[in-house]
Amino acid sequence: MLQNIRVVLVNTSHPGNIGGAARAMKNMGLTKLVLVDPMDFPSPEARARASGADDILDGAQVVATLEEALVGCSLVVGTSARDRRIPWPLLDPRECGRTSVEQVQVGGEVALVFGREYAGLTNEELQRCQYHVHIPSNPEFSSLNLAAAVQVLVYEVRMAWLEQEGLPSKVEKVEATAMLNTQPATVDELERYYEHLESTLVEIGFLDPEKPRHLMSRLRRLYGRSNISKLEMNILRGILTETQKAVRGETGKRSDT
Amino acid sequence: MLQNIRVVLVNTSHPGNIGGAARAMKNMGLTKLVLVDPMDFPSPEARARASGADDILDGAQVVATLEEALVGCSLVVGTSARDRRIPWPLLDPRECGRTSVEQVQVGGEVALVFGREYAGLTNEELQRCQYHVHIPSNPEFSSLNLAAAVQVLVYEVRMAWLEQEGLPSKVEKVEATAMLNTQPATVDELERYYEHLESTLVEIGFLDPEKPRHLMSRLRRLYGRSNISKLEMNILRGILTETQKAVRGETGKRSDT
Repeated sequence: MLQNIRVVLVNTSHPGNIGGAARAMKNMGLTKLVLVDPMDFPSPEARARASGADDILDGAQVVATLEEALVGCSLVVGTSARDRRIPWPLLDPRECGRTSVEQVQVGGEVALVFGREYAGLTNEELQRCQYHVHIPSNPEFSSLNLAAAVQVLVYEVRMAWLEQEGLPSKVEKVEATAMLNTQPATVDELERYYEHLESTLVEIGFLDPEKPRHLMSRLRRLYGRSNISKLEMNILRGILTETQKAVRGETGKRSDT
Repeated sequence: MLQNIRVVLVNTSHPGNIGGAARAMKNMGLTKLVLVDPMDFPSPEARARASGADDILDGAQVVATLEEALVGCSLVVGTSARDRRIPWPLLDPRECGRTSVEQVQVGGEVALVFGREYAGLTNEELQRCQYHVHIPSNPEFSSLNLAAAVQVLVYEVRMAWLEQEGLPSKVEKVEATAMLNTQPATVDELERYYEHLESTLVEIGFLDPEKPRHLMSRLRRLYGRSNISKLEMNILRGILTETQKAVRGETGKRSDT
């Protein structure tokens, strides 16, 4: 599906940026790169910065005009650094990602269009876009590197795609044993821990049962918000047991954890 | 506020990436760059890629160890490409942005830590981080360019910051004492706590220094995700001190908490 979202770079000066854009695209699962009248392409510098995304560079389509680059697209979004005189429907990068993914879901093709390093897109080019997208930035230093701008927009495309596919945006591969280890402790286990903790604190002389102050409630608050797992509970209980033994002068047992 | 979120680059090989990171930071309104043992810095290549973010490069702090880079931080997030043996609390970039902004809102400082271009962060370095963040990517081509990864995370920081600024100001007036109590502990305070905890566990016979297993890393993981406040840190340290005194047969001092 992501192959139906193309990245269009207009009149790029630095081949390194083409390579950086190709790498960012491949990282995020996009494949189709279209270059409108690039200044220097193909180039070893592009290849170096692509850092293995050679297939994207080799498959890049080089065309003479923006019009050709947009053939077949049903949605065109142009990157815009500044406010323009004519108000235009504007997206932020997140909305751009979602709108793009929705568009390919209904069978459309999408172009994300990036302008020149120093001058961006012309007004005429921007008028060929249904939407403009602006990457929020420091007003006093607002111009992103071209490959960095591509990275942000294709990242948002991937986030939207993962969201739509119902895929997690992070994959925690946890082994079966690790699963057991991360199984949360129950509240009654926690209560038994607090009892054990309290008696140990009395035993070591840290807690005065006559003047308990807020100590236990503070410790409850700390451990209560920590999502203690069963494994961690065992460790914490083990520490208390060994503390008591050591204080009583009994032989300490080594941890087997 | 964003000045309290620092970008830490560990052992960077290519100065161009340092420049690219500086530019991305300045674009997104971040200012503090810390370089741990960079291979080539300062460098004209960094300056060229920074493209005007010279102030970020000039102000960059160069340190020898990750530990120094994290002084004063209450939240440390490390970028991680792969699954690790020990499961660790994982954020996606969006969650990372929100968590970072929340942390500086309560007066904390945040470090976003990026590893080497080819090898990332070591397991030891990753264990100094409370959270790992993974930028979702094409499983077959998953390694982002360093500056591109910085761009994605600082972009999400800016998005979260804008989101937060758009909301009605929350509870800004907090009493001085409450502030002190909820003020987060810094990572260097946490490190001192882990050292104290480790030596105490050895002393009570729970931890065998010859066979430490995963005990300390599990305890780091537990306390690392718990957002310990300075007050809580004092309580936990006090418990250790009293445990040691009690084990050594010294008189226990009552808690004054």
